[in-house]
Amino acid sequence: MTETLTLFDTTLRDGQQTQGVQFSTAEKRLIATALDDLGVDYIEGGWPGANPTDSDFFAAAPKTRATMTAFGMTKRVGRSAENDDVLAAVLDAGTPAVCLVGKAHEFHVRTALGCTLEENVEAIRASVAHCVAKGREALLDAEHFFDGYRADPAYALSCLRAALDAGARWIVLCDTNGGTLPAEVGRVVAEVIAAGIPGERLGIHCHDDTGNAVANSLAAVDAGARQIQGTLNGLGERCGNANLTTLIPTLLLKAPYKDRFRTGITEAALANLLRVSRQLDDILNRVPLRSAPYVGASAFAHKAGLHASAILKDPTTYEHIDPARVGNERVIPMSNQAGQSNLRARLASAGIAVEPKDPRLGRILEIVKEREDQGYAYDGAQASFELVARAELGLLPTFFEVKRYRVTVERRKNKYNRMVSLSEAVVVVKIGETKMLSVSESMDETGTDRGPVNALAKALAKDLGPYQACIDDMHLVDFKVRITQGGTEAVTRVIIDSEDSAGRRWSTVGVSANIVDASFEALLDAITWKLIRDHGQPVGA
Amino acid sequence: MTETLTLFDTTLRDGQQTQGVQFSTAEKRLIATALDDLGVDYIEGGWPGANPTDSDFFAAAPKTRATMTAFGMTKRVGRSAENDDVLAAVLDAGTPAVCLVGKAHEFHVRTALGCTLEENVEAIRASVAHCVAKGREALLDAEHFFDGYRADPAYALSCLRAALDAGARWIVLCDTNGGTLPAEVGRVVAEVIAAGIPGERLGIHCHDDTGNAVANSLAAVDAGARQIQGTLNGLGERCGNANLTTLIPTLLLKAPYKDRFRTGITEAALANLLRVSRQLDDILNRVPLRSAPYVGASAFAHKAGLHASAILKDPTTYEHIDPARVGNERVIPMSNQAGQSNLRARLASAGIAVEPKDPRLGRILEIVKEREDQGYAYDGAQASFELVARAELGLLPTFFEVKRYRVTVERRKNKYNRMVSLSEAVVVVKIGETKMLSVSESMDETGTDRGPVNALAKALAKDLGPYQACIDDMHLVDFKVRITQGGTEAVTRVIIDSEDSAGRRWSTVGVSANIVDASFEALLDAITWKLIRDHGQPVGA
Repeated sequence: MTETLTLFDTTLRDGQQTQGVQFSTAEKRLIATALDDLGVDYIEGGWPGANPTDSDFFAAAPKTRATMTAFGMTKRVGRSAENDDVLAAVLDAGTPAVCLVGKAHEFHVRTALGCTLEENVEAIRASVAHCVAKGREALLDAEHFFDGYRADPAYALSCLRAALDAGARWIVLCDTNGGTLPAEVGRVVAEVIAAGIPGERLGIHCHDDTGNAVANSLAAVDAGARQIQGTLNGLGERCGNANLTTLIPTLLLKAPYKDRFRTGITEAALANLLRVSRQLDDILNRVPLRSAPYVGASAFAHKAGLHASAILKDPTTYEHIDPARVGNERVIPMSNQAGQSNLRARLASAGIAVEPKDPRLGRILEIVKEREDQGYAYDGAQASFELVARAELGLLPTFFEVKRYRVTVERRKNKYNRMVSLSEAVVVVKIGETKMLSVSESMDETGTDRGPVNALAKALAKDLGPYQACIDDMHLVDFKVRITQGGTEAVTRVIIDSEDSAGRRWSTVGVSANIVDASFEALLDAITWKLIRDHGQPVGA
Repeated sequence: MTETLTLFDTTLRDGQQTQGVQFSTAEKRLIATALDDLGVDYIEGGWPGANPTDSDFFAAAPKTRATMTAFGMTKRVGRSAENDDVLAAVLDAGTPAVCLVGKAHEFHVRTALGCTLEENVEAIRASVAHCVAKGREALLDAEHFFDGYRADPAYALSCLRAALDAGARWIVLCDTNGGTLPAEVGRVVAEVIAAGIPGERLGIHCHDDTGNAVANSLAAVDAGARQIQGTLNGLGERCGNANLTTLIPTLLLKAPYKDRFRTGITEAALANLLRVSRQLDDILNRVPLRSAPYVGASAFAHKAGLHASAILKDPTTYEHIDPARVGNERVIPMSNQAGQSNLRARLASAGIAVEPKDPRLGRILEIVKEREDQGYAYDGAQASFELVARAELGLLPTFFEVKRYRVTVERRKNKYNRMVSLSEAVVVVKIGETKMLSVSESMDETGTDRGPVNALAKALAKDLGPYQACIDDMHLVDFKVRITQGGTEAVTRVIIDSEDSAGRRWSTVGVSANIVDASFEALLDAITWKLIRDHGQPVGA
């Protein structure tokens, strides 16, 4: 007999409290749609009235299967729920559900609110009752519940009861400061249920300040709570909220949860989890965390030699789940002794078949190793890796040859006595027997100097003869630069992510002590990869 | 009555399995010394004989108070412990302690080892006995213990008993694949102790594949285990090992552990924890994780308006510990309404006193906000932030003025028909009434072109007249580039970390659509900050 476990996502509200994160309204819409496709039950979209972005989001919130929820706070003391303009703004968002934060810790009532304990309980009661009277599903986020329960259990429970009696569908126990440890969470949730708050109306909201947000959420479920609040990729205030990207696969794939609970997440949605996680990082321009459970690029990377050789006999020897279940894949790093079969798999995924035991496989691994010693990183630049392999396999056509380039950056006063900069690039390319000189400057249509790499890229793309349409179809999405070690010296590693109209996205790498050179190398790889995809062979070949 | 809890660090062994991590011998020595200063009880230095780095490390391991430990595996079946060359290499390292991994899961014995269950038990017994006979303290890492116990508890326990009876000081229960959840870890550890393996000889070794490595370690301690194995910053195979940087403050500062256990970590060492964590990231050239518990840059960042205003009344309202205990500090982001008092604190730490309510405070916050909208990021560039504030406060001296610059990057064939690149920069600077033209090229002493930013930096630093000694004393440590959003356009953000001989380290930021310009701006800020520190005022002023 399975029970329902409800997933409440607060990426768009508590996740927005992550230092450095500021969603636009358009980004919030994108994320809401991704969350809905994933299958969470509630989407907390923000705090209408608290800032223009959140208000705009609710003014045109996407239609979702998930229950769209507006966040707010309980009414202020000294006015009625009906006359509280902050609460009114929350209700005006017109969402089917409203989640109100209310204090459950006597210290906070006295210190932060500065009202009596009774006034706070009454604020909770009246606010929840007001939402219910307006036809909304009401949730109470019981702020600082665990700290409050430690200080004064009777008062903390009275706050919960006030909400429950006023008709709240869910009472959410919040470990707001993130300092409570799993054993205590489990004990307190059990005591709350024993005190008469039904588990099927209890939620848990944890923060990761001791690295236990996931474990605390599980401990609460073990003790009987039936709603988990969390965020994608563990975004959130300070160290973040409970990471739903971690919790969802645990709940769906691992004992005792997988057979005990049903959630709104389907198998197909779970297999898309890695993509959703990456999409959020893309929107936020964050580097995905390689070590993230389930969805990290290293989550199924087997570097230890003993592990890698056992994995080849049977993957379950060193994998607790099949990586494909969450859209991830096994990685056996190239430099490893077990690399050859993995290399063949990687080549096959690029459409290149190589027989096992082909001696060129070993040579490719050596080249990759040598180049990684020089500072290249092929983990994040699969397209460049493919070109390295193609070169060794004799499958790398020469579409064009760059004979030379020159780029100049100047900064000086213009005729209006303002400091301005301008970059200019000359590129000389040979296509077949035809030599082509192109020159471009880096000024864009708004008069902004976009720098030497831009000028070079434009000059290179200006006239590639028969390949022009193919080049016009691609654009640069991201450009990452890192000083790294190449042999004994510091070198610059540039990784370029490119995209085309077919929705392809590929990454290339360039390394040099000269950042312009490194960028140019990554750019050339990006163009070559695209030409192979679109043309296969040089025109006329 | 306090009990001893033993901390076993495996950063140099399991941490070395992190994808992308490859320590040099010198780095291993550095890290070992940092670990010893921190106060862990055991330092597992690597696997002598398995690779040259580890062998070199043990050949000249630093003297440590912590017990230096060599890792290895139990003897192979078909030869005696005395005649196993792999085991001999481990013992040859001459460490006081030896930690051997042995299998405790019948599936692995059959699949990976391909021997009988009895042969494996005998291998464990004989290997441990051999180490003990050689006068070493022996530890058994019982690999796949939890999976093995689930499959066949009697066999898994028999592996532990063999090691214990042979004289192992510690039996370490390893959740090798990282898939076991906290409730099960707690239950199994309790059952192991009930089966006769004493808790004071039991260790726990967890991986983070479900995000529970920390919670699993705590669950094992709750159940009676008395040694925790983990790594700094949670390095390790796949998703990493239990993060000691997280566990140590929890054990020292949080109930029920703080009053129950004593460890080798002093209060002073704990206050140095953030520095140790950053030192490891520096060595690995990794960007520190902002959201890391306790030591992350965001761990005590209070972005939510309600939180920030309460923090000003009493920090304990939204902090579960005092950040200073781990060497961290409270951050109230500048753009926040609570920013003014925080701003004053930041200015005070740069030696600039401003009265509360000074209207310039509000203006500084506005400028910071405007510039962050343009793409600047002052979180990671405190020195540039200080300059922005100084400019508004009239405390920013003009040491010199850059009138113009020009930099050229050329790539073409040299006389040996090899493609080479060369950058050249001309900088025109005015110091007082003196105009100075400097030209530099980017070639270093090895003949490598180090690129346009290097050429510019060299030209700029070539002749700064009275400030030359000051400039010669600083050097660039890191250079980070990121494409980000500036208003509606993509811009390049460059962050430069600089260092000087006094051990100062400071970070500056530059933003422009042109990467050379952005770098130059960050470079100018870095020089100006250093001149303020060394000279205070322009020479002659």
